[in-house]
Amino acid sequence: MDFDATVGASPIIPDWLHRRRHSGRLAIAHEGAAWTYAELHEHAGRLAGALAQRGVSAGDRVALLARHGLVFTASVHALIQLGAVLVPLNTRQAIPELVWQLDAARVRLLIGDAEHSDLARQLVDRLQSGETRRAVALLTLDGERWPESAAPVHREHLDLRAVQCVMFTSGTTGRPKGALITYGNHLWGAAGSAFRLGVQPDDRWLTPLPLFHVGGQAVLLRSVIYGTAAVIHRAFDPDAVNHAIDAQGVTLVSVVPAMLTRMIAGRKLPYPGTLRNILLGGGPAPRTLLEDCLALAAPVSQSYGLTEANSQVATLSLDDAMRKLGSSGQPLLMTEVRIMEGAVALPPGSEGEIALRGPTVIPGYDNQPEADAGAFHDGWFHTGDVGYLDDEGYLFVLDRRSDLIVTGGENVYPAEVEAALLAHPDIVEAGVTGVADERYGHAVFAVVALRAGARLEEAEIRQFCRERLGGYKIPRDIRFVAELPRNAAGKLLRKELVKCL
Amino acid sequence: MDFDATVGASPIIPDWLHRRRHSGRLAIAHEGAAWTYAELHEHAGRLAGALAQRGVSAGDRVALLARHGLVFTASVHALIQLGAVLVPLNTRQAIPELVWQLDAARVRLLIGDAEHSDLARQLVDRLQSGETRRAVALLTLDGERWPESAAPVHREHLDLRAVQCVMFTSGTTGRPKGALITYGNHLWGAAGSAFRLGVQPDDRWLTPLPLFHVGGQAVLLRSVIYGTAAVIHRAFDPDAVNHAIDAQGVTLVSVVPAMLTRMIAGRKLPYPGTLRNILLGGGPAPRTLLEDCLALAAPVSQSYGLTEANSQVATLSLDDAMRKLGSSGQPLLMTEVRIMEGAVALPPGSEGEIALRGPTVIPGYDNQPEADAGAFHDGWFHTGDVGYLDDEGYLFVLDRRSDLIVTGGENVYPAEVEAALLAHPDIVEAGVTGVADERYGHAVFAVVALRAGARLEEAEIRQFCRERLGGYKIPRDIRFVAELPRNAAGKLLRKELVKCL
Repeated sequence: MDFDATVGASPIIPDWLHRRRHSGRLAIAHEGAAWTYAELHEHAGRLAGALAQRGVSAGDRVALLARHGLVFTASVHALIQLGAVLVPLNTRQAIPELVWQLDAARVRLLIGDAEHSDLARQLVDRLQSGETRRAVALLTLDGERWPESAAPVHREHLDLRAVQCVMFTSGTTGRPKGALITYGNHLWGAAGSAFRLGVQPDDRWLTPLPLFHVGGQAVLLRSVIYGTAAVIHRAFDPDAVNHAIDAQGVTLVSVVPAMLTRMIAGRKLPYPGTLRNILLGGGPAPRTLLEDCLALAAPVSQSYGLTEANSQVATLSLDDAMRKLGSSGQPLLMTEVRIMEGAVALPPGSEGEIALRGPTVIPGYDNQPEADAGAFHDGWFHTGDVGYLDDEGYLFVLDRRSDLIVTGGENVYPAEVEAALLAHPDIVEAGVTGVADERYGHAVFAVVALRAGARLEEAEIRQFCRERLGGYKIPRDIRFVAELPRNAAGKLLRKELVKCL
Repeated sequence: MDFDATVGASPIIPDWLHRRRHSGRLAIAHEGAAWTYAELHEHAGRLAGALAQRGVSAGDRVALLARHGLVFTASVHALIQLGAVLVPLNTRQAIPELVWQLDAARVRLLIGDAEHSDLARQLVDRLQSGETRRAVALLTLDGERWPESAAPVHREHLDLRAVQCVMFTSGTTGRPKGALITYGNHLWGAAGSAFRLGVQPDDRWLTPLPLFHVGGQAVLLRSVIYGTAAVIHRAFDPDAVNHAIDAQGVTLVSVVPAMLTRMIAGRKLPYPGTLRNILLGGGPAPRTLLEDCLALAAPVSQSYGLTEANSQVATLSLDDAMRKLGSSGQPLLMTEVRIMEGAVALPPGSEGEIALRGPTVIPGYDNQPEADAGAFHDGWFHTGDVGYLDDEGYLFVLDRRSDLIVTGGENVYPAEVEAALLAHPDIVEAGVTGVADERYGHAVFAVVALRAGARLEEAEIRQFCRERLGGYKIPRDIRFVAELPRNAAGKLLRKELVKCL
C-alpha cells in the first residue's frame, strides 16, 4: 500500500462499489429493470469472474460496443473489479473507424450487446484478417442471461492514478485520440460537480446520452461515487424523459440543447420541484430556449465540458442563468481556466484559447506522445476552443475547437469528414462545416470541388462516405463549386462555406 | 507550482474563498449580522492585511480566543489568506491550560474577541513573565470595527498538504495534543460529508457548537468549500435553534444529544421538510430521543468523529436510523475503519480498538513525536476508542479505551451502561465511570439527570439495569444531578463524574 501519512491523502482509496455492496438503494434503472447497489455489486463481480476465466487481467484493454444500459453498466464495473481498462466504442461509427480504434487501443476482448453482436463479429474478423492480425476475443451479453462464473472477482481498493478507460475523441486532424481517464478524474469530477449542482441521497440522475461518451459515463460513475441512482435511457424519447421527471422521481437530467428543445415542445405542465437540475452540455442554448425553460420552471444549467476534462469544466448556476446569458458559468471548484494566446495568459475580456488545469483533466492521450506534446504545456491542457472570461470569472465559449460540429449530441470534426471526401479520386478540394438545424442543433454540410472533367452525384459521394464514416458524420447537403473560399495563405475559410448553400 | 500532470491531481488547488469573491450568496450569519461571500472575502483580506502589518507571515502560529462568530470566521479566513496557522483556543479552559497551549504551539499573536479581551491580556502577561518568556502580541476584535489595513492580502491557491490549524484535543487523557489539520483534511472531509449527507446550493448549516472544536470549525470550512451558508450561534439556545430551522431556512444542524434533547423538549410542531439533517455527534443518542425525533419528523444522523479525523469518521444514514440503532453508521466514502487488537485487524463482530486511514486523518501531532509514534502505525491512526464493525460494515462505538472500567477481572464499557440507563423513560442524561474499590479494583459508578418532575429511587434504577445488563455492570452507586459535566463541545467529561460522589 502506497499510503503516505505525511500528506494524509493516499492515491489508494476504498472502492466505491465495494462500499455499497450491502446497500438496498437503487443503483441503476434501465427500461423497466432496476438493480440495487447490492445487485450491481454482485453482477459486476460475477461478470468480472467470467472475464477473468476468459483471460482478462489487470491492465488489459477491453472494448465495449453497447447501448444496452445494464450491459454497459455491468461491463464498466466488472472491468473496474479486474483493474482492466475499458475502451467504450461509439456504436454509430463505421467499421473502418471502429477497427482502427480497436487496433490502436490494443484491445484484447470485445464485449457487445445483442443489438451489436453482428457488428462486433465483423470487427473481430476484420482485425484477425487485417494488417496487424490482432486476435480479439468476443463476448456477447444480452442483458438478461449473464455468463456463469466459478468465482466472482471483487476489489476493495482503487488507485486514483490508474486509468479506468480510454475514450476516443474525434481528432482535429483526422485520427481520433484516446483520452486516458483515471479514477482520480472521476472522483474529482464527482466532487466538483456536487459542489456546484449539489447532491442528495435520493437523487436519480437520468441521461439519454450515449454512455460511450464522457457525459454519459460520468452519470454512471458519479452515481456510484455518490451512492445515488442512474437512470439510463437507451435512446432519446422526449416523452419518456418528461415522464421520468414527472412520475419517476428523476432529480437530475443530462441532455444537449436539441433534446431539451424537443422535451419542452408543446409542454404546458411546469416541471415539478423534485427536478433539481437539467445539465445542458454540447454547446450554448439559444435565448429563446432558456426563456421557454423559465416559463416551465425547468432548472437549466448550461455547461462546458470535454472528454479531456472528464466532462464538466464549467457550469452556470441556476441563479446566474439569466444574468450571465450565453456563459457556461464558472469553472468547477478544483478546475482552473485560463485564456491563452500561445504561452501567454490573457486578462479578463480578452478572447483566446481556453486552457485548463486541475484534477479532472486527463494525464494524457493513449500512446500518442505527439498529441500530448501538442496539447499539454506546463501542466495546462490547451483545448483548442476559443472563449473569454469576464470580470467575475465566468467563461464564455465562443467557438468549439477547429469548427467542431455538434449534431444531435455527437461531435463531428470537419477535418475528419474532409479527409474522407478527399480520399475520393475525383474530389480535389473539400470543405465541411455545420449549418443550423432545428432538430439536431447543427447538420453537416460539405462543399467540394471536382477534378476537371469529373462528374459525380451527391448520392455517390454520400455512399463513398458511408463506407468510411459513422452515419452522423455524413454530409446531409453537398454543394459543388469550382474553388473553395480560402484566405491569402490558402487556408480554408470554413466560416464562408455557408455562402455556398 | 508543483503540478504533476502525470497524476492529474496537484496538491495546489484554487483557493475556495477566492473562487467565491464575486458571489452575492450568503456566507455567514451570526446574531443578526450576515455577510455574503464577497463581503467575507473582503473582510478576510483586510484583516489579513492588518495582521501582515503586525508582522504575521506564512507559517506563523496565531491563536484565537473567541466565541464571536464573525470574529472567529474573519480570523480563520484572514489566516488562510496569509498562509498562517490558526490555533483555536477553548475559551472554557483555565488559565494554566491556555498558557501551556500558547507556549507549546509557539504562538506569535493572540486574537481575542471583546468578551475575552481581559483573559487574553492575562494570558499574554503570563507568557511574557513565564518560564519561556514568550512574547505574544495581542489583537482585540469586537466584531464591529475592524482594524485598518493599507493593503488587503488575498491568495489564489491553496496547498492541500499545508497545515491550516493546530487544534488541541480535549485532553481527557493527560496533556492536550495539537492535531495538525491540513487543507486536504478539510477538502476531503467536505467531499466525504457531501457524499453521505448530500449538499444543496441553498444549504444553511447551523451550529451552536463552539467553533474552536473540530465539529464547529468543520461547519465553517465546509460551507466555504460548498459555497453555502454557515449559521453560527454563539451559545446554545434551543428556542433559537428551533426558530432558525422553522423560519430562517436552516437545512442542516450540528448538535450533541444533550442539545437535541432540549430542542425537542415540549415541541409539538413537526420539523419542516426544509430541514435535511440533524448531525448528531458527541456520543450515542438514547433510544427514546431517537423515537421522539421520529415523531417530530426530525431527520437525525448519528455520527462518530474526532479531532484527529477532522470531525466525521462515520455517519448513519437516515434510512438506517432505526435498523442500525446504536451504530454510528458506515465510514465516509474515503475513510477506512479497522478494528484492531494491537497490529492485528479483527473480523466483523469482534470488539477492539478503532483504527482509521484516509485523507481526513491528520498527518500527525504538533511537535509531539512520541504521541505520533503511539498513535500512527503503518499508515493507520489508532484512536484509542473501542468498538466493532458489523457484517455490513456499520461501526458501533463502545467506548473510549481510557474510560474502560475493569471490575473483578471483567471489562465494563461505560457507554454500554449509560445506554442502559438512558433507555429508562425518566432518565435524560447518564454518565458512568469507574471508582477505586478495595475488593474489585474498580466499581461502576453512575450519575444521572432525571426528566423534569420525575421521581426515581436508586433501587428502581438498579432493578431496571438488572433486566438489561450482567450483574457486574450494574452501578453500585448512583447519584442524581441536574446536569452532567460536559466540555464546551457537549462531550461528557467522565473523569469529572467522581466529583459527584
